[in-house]
Amino acid sequence: MIDLRSDTVTKPTAAMRLAMAEAEVGDDVYGEDPTVNRLEKDAAKIFGKEAAIFVPTGTMGNQIAIRLHTQHGQEVICEARSHVLDWEMAMMAVFSGCQARAVQGERGVLTWEKIQRVFGPKIYYRQTTGLICLENTHNMAGGTVTPLDVLQEVWRGADKVGLPVHLDGARVFNAATALGVDVAELTAGFETVMFCLSKGLGSPVGSMLVGSAKAIEQARSFRKALGGGMRQAGVLAAAGLISLHEMTKRLHEDHANARLLADAVANEASAEVDLDGVQTNIVIFSLKGEADAAAFCARLKEKSVLASAVGPHAVRFVTHYDVSREMCAEAAAITAAELKALHAYA
Amino acid sequence: MIDLRSDTVTKPTAAMRLAMAEAEVGDDVYGEDPTVNRLEKDAAKIFGKEAAIFVPTGTMGNQIAIRLHTQHGQEVICEARSHVLDWEMAMMAVFSGCQARAVQGERGVLTWEKIQRVFGPKIYYRQTTGLICLENTHNMAGGTVTPLDVLQEVWRGADKVGLPVHLDGARVFNAATALGVDVAELTAGFETVMFCLSKGLGSPVGSMLVGSAKAIEQARSFRKALGGGMRQAGVLAAAGLISLHEMTKRLHEDHANARLLADAVANEASAEVDLDGVQTNIVIFSLKGEADAAAFCARLKEKSVLASAVGPHAVRFVTHYDVSREMCAEAAAITAAELKALHAYA
Amino acid sequence: MIDLRSDTVTKPTAAMRLAMAEAEVGDDVYGEDPTVNRLEKDAAKIFGKEAAIFVPTGTMGNQIAIRLHTQHGQEVICEARSHVLDWEMAMMAVFSGCQARAVQGERGVLTWEKIQRVFGPKIYYRQTTGLICLENTHNMAGGTVTPLDVLQEVWRGADKVGLPVHLDGARVFNAATALGVDVAELTAGFETVMFCLSKGLGSPVGSMLVGSAKAIEQARSFRKALGGGMRQAGVLAAAGLISLHEMTKRLHEDHANARLLADAVANEASAEVDLDGVQTNIVIFSLKGEADAAAFCARLKEKSVLASAVGPHAVRFVTHYDVSREMCAEAAAITAAELKALHAYA
Amino acid sequence: MIDLRSDTVTKPTAAMRLAMAEAEVGDDVYGEDPTVNRLEKDAAKIFGKEAAIFVPTGTMGNQIAIRLHTQHGQEVICEARSHVLDWEMAMMAVFSGCQARAVQGERGVLTWEKIQRVFGPKIYYRQTTGLICLENTHNMAGGTVTPLDVLQEVWRGADKVGLPVHLDGARVFNAATALGVDVAELTAGFETVMFCLSKGLGSPVGSMLVGSAKAIEQARSFRKALGGGMRQAGVLAAAGLISLHEMTKRLHEDHANARLLADAVANEASAEVDLDGVQTNIVIFSLKGEADAAAFCARLKEKSVLASAVGPHAVRFVTHYDVSREMCAEAAAITAAELKALHAYA
Repeated sequence: MIDLRSDTVTKPTAAMRLAMAEAEVGDDVYGEDPTVNRLEKDAAKIFGKEAAIFVPTGTMGNQIAIRLHTQHGQEVICEARSHVLDWEMAMMAVFSGCQARAVQGERGVLTWEKIQRVFGPKIYYRQTTGLICLENTHNMAGGTVTPLDVLQEVWRGADKVGLPVHLDGARVFNAATALGVDVAELTAGFETVMFCLSKGLGSPVGSMLVGSAKAIEQARSFRKALGGGMRQAGVLAAAGLISLHEMTKRLHEDHANARLLADAVANEASAEVDLDGVQTNIVIFSLKGEADAAAFCARLKEKSVLASAVGPHAVRFVTHYDVSREMCAEAAAITAAELKALHAYA
Repeated sequence: MIDLRSDTVTKPTAAMRLAMAEAEVGDDVYGEDPTVNRLEKDAAKIFGKEAAIFVPTGTMGNQIAIRLHTQHGQEVICEARSHVLDWEMAMMAVFSGCQARAVQGERGVLTWEKIQRVFGPKIYYRQTTGLICLENTHNMAGGTVTPLDVLQEVWRGADKVGLPVHLDGARVFNAATALGVDVAELTAGFETVMFCLSKGLGSPVGSMLVGSAKAIEQARSFRKALGGGMRQAGVLAAAGLISLHEMTKRLHEDHANARLLADAVANEASAEVDLDGVQTNIVIFSLKGEADAAAFCARLKEKSVLASAVGPHAVRFVTHYDVSREMCAEAAAITAAELKALHAYA
Repeated sequence: MIDLRSDTVTKPTAAMRLAMAEAEVGDDVYGEDPTVNRLEKDAAKIFGKEAAIFVPTGTMGNQIAIRLHTQHGQEVICEARSHVLDWEMAMMAVFSGCQARAVQGERGVLTWEKIQRVFGPKIYYRQTTGLICLENTHNMAGGTVTPLDVLQEVWRGADKVGLPVHLDGARVFNAATALGVDVAELTAGFETVMFCLSKGLGSPVGSMLVGSAKAIEQARSFRKALGGGMRQAGVLAAAGLISLHEMTKRLHEDHANARLLADAVANEASAEVDLDGVQTNIVIFSLKGEADAAAFCARLKEKSVLASAVGPHAVRFVTHYDVSREMCAEAAAITAAELKALHAYA
Repeated sequence: MIDLRSDTVTKPTAAMRLAMAEAEVGDDVYGEDPTVNRLEKDAAKIFGKEAAIFVPTGTMGNQIAIRLHTQHGQEVICEARSHVLDWEMAMMAVFSGCQARAVQGERGVLTWEKIQRVFGPKIYYRQTTGLICLENTHNMAGGTVTPLDVLQEVWRGADKVGLPVHLDGARVFNAATALGVDVAELTAGFETVMFCLSKGLGSPVGSMLVGSAKAIEQARSFRKALGGGMRQAGVLAAAGLISLHEMTKRLHEDHANARLLADAVANEASAEVDLDGVQTNIVIFSLKGEADAAAFCARLKEKSVLASAVGPHAVRFVTHYDVSREMCAEAAAITAAELKALHAYA
């Protein structure tokens, strides 16, 4: 099987397995796991922030961040198809008591110009805004990248009105790779950043939240509350260190593979793909003539290619470490053939 | 002062004051207030539902309804500028743990076609939809009316997918008046309806939630929780009975007055008003040339006309019982003069 | 009927009805109701605090206060049978996300010595205490009074550890009357105090929350959130002013009447009453021999006396403005007769 | 160091490390991790329930269970020093909107007789009970065991009133070992059981929640919400399988070691220990003469023995896989010597 459903399917590398087996561990609830401590220190340093905390999932990292920056009864401004809105079980409401103020961005990109339009009047009988949350790269928009200057304008604007900005950076290393910018620079103005060690970076389990020492100290309480206070978590952090230090260097390969797939799709008359929107490791394309995406994915599966239907007529490929250039080339050929067949039917 | 800021400013009529002074009362927490009981019985009957409950505000009525129909961690589909989203302090999140799924309606009208597009996939790791919430008339869209056939299609669609539909009917009698349809028919397919005795119906305090006997029984617990379990509430219900039985008959006067104001504005070059959107007792118009709405309202106030700025360049008039035809004519003339002056400046 | 179930059953006096009918009103959401404004100003002055806010119920007042002083995920220390714990629908958890830390007080009285024992260790993986909440008089303990020196010790202790203290003072005027102390002195060290205009003070609807200007400003937002932002609330505030200025002066009569009832019960062999615990307008007594309280209340009702069963064998009388000395004497005689009959059965 | 602070400090065994390195894994969010699937299947079978779910921590398992069985605004009956009340960050309130109804049990044991006393009256304006939660063994009571007949009485009583019962069985295998009863029999009447693979069973990370297929299916959504939806969790589950199948067989050793420590303490005049309460792997003792527990632990630490101060004068030892009989004997000798020294001081 060539599994292009998501970069979440990556399996730990041999190096990771070895590291996990040999990891020096301790009770992390007491702050005594040396491997977790090293990972947290390294992550903070790489992002140029004071501190970091290891969490089991990106969802937990994002939801801790939302809780950190808001009060119950406030609004969180986020993109209309963002992960925090669509895929985190409404926890923004459940855990933080916050209402989403969804703003539609072009290719998932939220500009300050769009953000500032949705602030409500400042009167006691209207909820206030507590946080702005961006996503870079933007998953559901197809792995699209928000450029540094757009971010800088948001940071400046938010600073002026006194609002914190959090980054859902599940794939922020993909964004940094695509832009050729260091992650520290790309996230300099965010109060907190969540990034995933799993997904493109290949760890079996784990994400990080980075921010000020004070924010991360408070985050430890919220992590405990959410049930994320694991004991000998060093067995996971050991893989995380490899993700952080090694796997971040090879993401351009995934991007090139996504391009290869996108180009193959673009050649076919029965599909439509926004080539300018294929910027990292995700390719989303539409089937013309209202062809059924789920059925199309089923046909691909018969040919050993796994893809996701992300809309009635929309199909998604995500490239990652476990699919090589050769496998992607093969998948591209199979997809092209299936798209031709689709055309023939229509 | 000719107060056109909102129909919430209406003062109790002489008949209401007398009724309040003479009201037979009891302890409503024990179900012993005869005036409250009568009001609840009458409201249920008029709406063709099994039961009704008196609540201090429309916000409480809506939020009880949302809590009734949902589970924490679900989504509530509502219009993008609806009252439950914009003006209820994010209580959908705080009290019901629900996330708003905002859908933009034309003139505030949500059609089934638009609603059905935002259902997410049914997988365990995605929040589900718990409720659809409509608003008729729609306040921020300018008192616009959703017609019966559009509602019927929503009811049928929702029924098919097994979703309840709640009506924020703060001004549902205005909608019924505009359409010439009985409120019972206009709300037949809603699980619950909230309507206000204050606003156009003139009571000093109070709203009602109507629905099935089971829903309203549960609503009593939620009302108690929210701190709405008042004791000798019959003093308020006495006014409410007059609102329900008398004041509902005269809303066409307010609508005619709003039309008069809208026409006056439409004649002026410095303002823009969607005349087709002026359907009940609300008039919203825009000042051209990016003229400042707050400043314009301040100038009107100097001439004894009170209006609301509802956007940077948007002004709102709301007609009601306390502003007569004569007062509206005078306000129209003053507004026209100020709009002319505005034009001269530009 | 001689209704001794609760002081919540009092009906508005003639003076109140007149005041309600003639009340000058406005839209209180906009801060324009002169009668509400006067009530809030007078209440603040009487309690020696900066500000006050009118709320429809005591429950809303208490829950706003809890929300004001806490963060979600904290603990609220309260007495084991306190109203906030037993009769407010778990809203401490629902609205404020706080966990009750119940402490058993003797006759409902919480001392600093008892309070300080339940603070948990200060470590990041343990919830912190956010608030201490007292109740004076204490309803379920039988209207018992916490003396000033006990309160002062709590205030000093709480101040030392940096914790706010709220008073559920639903019947604080009863406490002040019993102690012969001014309410301002009796509540000087509380951050916020809720007291009821209904109950012993006779208003049909309404309670007040008093505190600092900043706290009360924030309270307006929470009141709006809970659905307590009423419009022409002056019709209720008009009665409230009479409660505040007139009805507070006559509570010694209710206390004397309660004493009369308690003495009658104490004379009977089939009942047991803690006479030292009868300190204000509440009498709770137990039926010996495990006699059924509900059945006993039913028998009293046949003789036109209404009482509450507040436990399997416990009966409660509450005296108030609507039961005169004569009525209480009659109720005492009827109760004595029924207790004698009970004795005969046993 | 002889670390007797908690059984949470155990490090993965060599067998576990090997299993983790070789674990067959997949994306568990998609249900494709074969090792997780095997662990869940085996756990369900051992407990005689339909299904099981792997969670990162016991706190998450307990909080999912509370959420499963309750509605916001209900009460959860639990023991006064239970883990769900004292050590789970008030999440019962935050995530489930439930209020704790704490009941003091003798040695942490809740009987049906005590439980049934705290049900409130069934009236619409009183919160209802949603769940009964027991803890076996009971951590803060010193690892005490609730016997099977006591449990059976609770199950029967709860069944009669229609209430679910959840077990916080973090150390339920210790209870089963102490009683010589199979865990399936010991938990037969619980709707759900949480047990830990870490703690006495030695896994680095992980707990399980077992129950009906329907409950566990719903639990998957709540786990996702809390941020516990890990990807290639098989690396952890591999260790968990060893905990479940191997480590459960050796707990009697830890119990014997705890007894050894308890006997040593009991011999000393400066300490007091309830020997009948030392039933599993926990020993709690008090220092006489109000001697400071933290200072005593500091002195033990200087002699390479780590213990916890669990009260001003209370010290706790917990035995586990990483402290052998020899180490415990040494710790017992050191403790005895320090207690003698303490006596000399006093």
